[in-house]
Amino acid sequence: MHVMRGIESTHDGFVASSRKRFVKKDPSHKNLDVLQQEIENGSRLYLARGITLLESTKPSDKKVGQEVLTNLLPKTGNCIRIGITGVPGAGKSTFIEAFGLMLAEMGHKVAVLAIDPSSTLTGGSILGDKTRMEELARHKNAFIRPSPSAGTLGGVHKKSRETMLLCEAAGYDVILIETVGVGQGETIVRGMVDYFLLLVLTGAGDELQGMKKGIMELTDGVVVHKNDGANKPLVKKTVREYTRIMHMLQPASPEWTSRVQPVSSIEKTGLEAVWETVLEFEKEMKEKNHWDTRRQHQTRDWFHSMIRDHLIDSFFSESGRKTQVKALEEELLDGHLTVTGAIDRLFSS
Amino acid sequence: MHVMRGIESTHDGFVASSRKRFVKKDPSHKNLDVLQQEIENGSRLYLARGITLLESTKPSDKKVGQEVLTNLLPKTGNCIRIGITGVPGAGKSTFIEAFGLMLAEMGHKVAVLAIDPSSTLTGGSILGDKTRMEELARHKNAFIRPSPSAGTLGGVHKKSRETMLLCEAAGYDVILIETVGVGQGETIVRGMVDYFLLLVLTGAGDELQGMKKGIMELTDGVVVHKNDGANKPLVKKTVREYTRIMHMLQPASPEWTSRVQPVSSIEKTGLEAVWETVLEFEKEMKEKNHWDTRRQHQTRDWFHSMIRDHLIDSFFSESGRKTQVKALEEELLDGHLTVTGAIDRLFSS
Repeated sequence: MHVMRGIESTHDGFVASSRKRFVKKDPSHKNLDVLQQEIENGSRLYLARGITLLESTKPSDKKVGQEVLTNLLPKTGNCIRIGITGVPGAGKSTFIEAFGLMLAEMGHKVAVLAIDPSSTLTGGSILGDKTRMEELARHKNAFIRPSPSAGTLGGVHKKSRETMLLCEAAGYDVILIETVGVGQGETIVRGMVDYFLLLVLTGAGDELQGMKKGIMELTDGVVVHKNDGANKPLVKKTVREYTRIMHMLQPASPEWTSRVQPVSSIEKTGLEAVWETVLEFEKEMKEKNHWDTRRQHQTRDWFHSMIRDHLIDSFFSESGRKTQVKALEEELLDGHLTVTGAIDRLFSS
Repeated sequence: MHVMRGIESTHDGFVASSRKRFVKKDPSHKNLDVLQQEIENGSRLYLARGITLLESTKPSDKKVGQEVLTNLLPKTGNCIRIGITGVPGAGKSTFIEAFGLMLAEMGHKVAVLAIDPSSTLTGGSILGDKTRMEELARHKNAFIRPSPSAGTLGGVHKKSRETMLLCEAAGYDVILIETVGVGQGETIVRGMVDYFLLLVLTGAGDELQGMKKGIMELTDGVVVHKNDGANKPLVKKTVREYTRIMHMLQPASPEWTSRVQPVSSIEKTGLEAVWETVLEFEKEMKEKNHWDTRRQHQTRDWFHSMIRDHLIDSFFSESGRKTQVKALEEELLDGHLTVTGAIDRLFSS
């Protein structure tokens, strides 16, 4: 009966039949409808299982994950998606723990998709779970999912967007996505979230040197972190400096000028002000119809970037392609060949 | 005999045979070796013809253009490539005329690849030739080639890189490439040049609002333009403001902090200082081995972006693809389909 319902709600016969195979072969997840129901009911255990299926490289697992997510799509979107970036050392995890705890205490359900740098070494993300954001991880309203950063573009797991959607279906209404703070990750996360927050420390000039180019023009808000103890006067100065810079740059969201706000995650100050700014941003964007428009653009862009990735990956996975391209590159650099000539050779064969 | 030499230096039999067809069909360019020789000798007329062949959509013309360029590749590269950008109204054409004239008078051979906004309307670029940069256009050491901006990515003609190389083969040692100042053109031009110059006006904040995001982090130098008459005190202030901003941002070229310099193209002041900075930049980059490294990266990136463009263009030119993608986009936005599901549907059929 459960199986029947699953098939009825399926848009693709192939998925359904693959689901059947899965049901037979993998008794641990045999009841797909239970999985779906438990995710809807807010079970963190089943949510984690669902994400594992989405992230799986095993085709049968992936298909079940996709089926569950497709069925749950109508439950997604009722949330605020916040991206958080900053150079290593800016205290992103500490901020997310303090900010997330405050929101969880307010009654929000907070999902944290954290990029765990340690997972490259351990091959998993268990370590991250245990050593970071301990207090938040124990809170009943929080769900933390570090993604392995190994082998993924800019450290952002390719499936992070779908992980995010599954969390939303599970009732999480605040999604916090932490980036590693270097490379291409920021642009990808900016393309997933409603609000993008940049964490900086005092000493604006030096700080910025370590950041990705154009990062400030991706941000909707800046937090000057570690506004505690003797650091306070310097933070005040840094807030002024960043405010001046942000006023000169093009805004990341239409008609919105980024606020620069001081925060101490240790002394728990400034966190509420940040949240109030996020809410004000949401209100303004919704009033001006920018909120849904941006999300629609994001989905379309995501689709098109997946098309591109697929085309490029397929091309380079063809037998001998990499060697051929490498050989042409050498001819190009030797100055014996024009780029147009190289393209002709590549695609006329 | 000329034909024999042509065939010997050809890496591709197909090109050679196509060249033969061309020789028969198009008597106006029948002597390819003359074309090549005249370009090497610095004939502006033949250079213009060569560029027209490179830009042509007619396969036989394109192939002759490619053959000439391939033969001339060893003559390219002995030059400084400068990209020039700025919002409309910053006075790019006026600056290029004054700057180019100064260089031409010094004995440099100056090629200007200008993007002519009027060509979208006229369908050609004759107007641009006649109405802009009149004095420079008449100088014996200058060559101006406006490219049609219609239908090209960000207004930069797809063949601009090869046009640039042909100019270099013709002995032009300073290449100035003007961008339209909006959209994606800047990133493309940044990927073609050694030095990237941003023209701004007084009133830094308002000015920047109209510019592409992250533009300041692409630039190696800033010119505060229109430093004339009553405008001078304001220019001085703007120079200070931009200097402060540039110090805070990540440099476009390794270990190089952008200079901000005041220029009046009418009063002819500041132009020499800009050129001296460019030369200092060249010296420093060459000493640190960044000069050739960047050019090699640029060639490689150009090749890879052409591969991507080709794959994507081929895919979307397949019968029914656009309709199919559009239909999937609608399902995505309706929330009935995941992106992974859409990709599966697109590539499993």
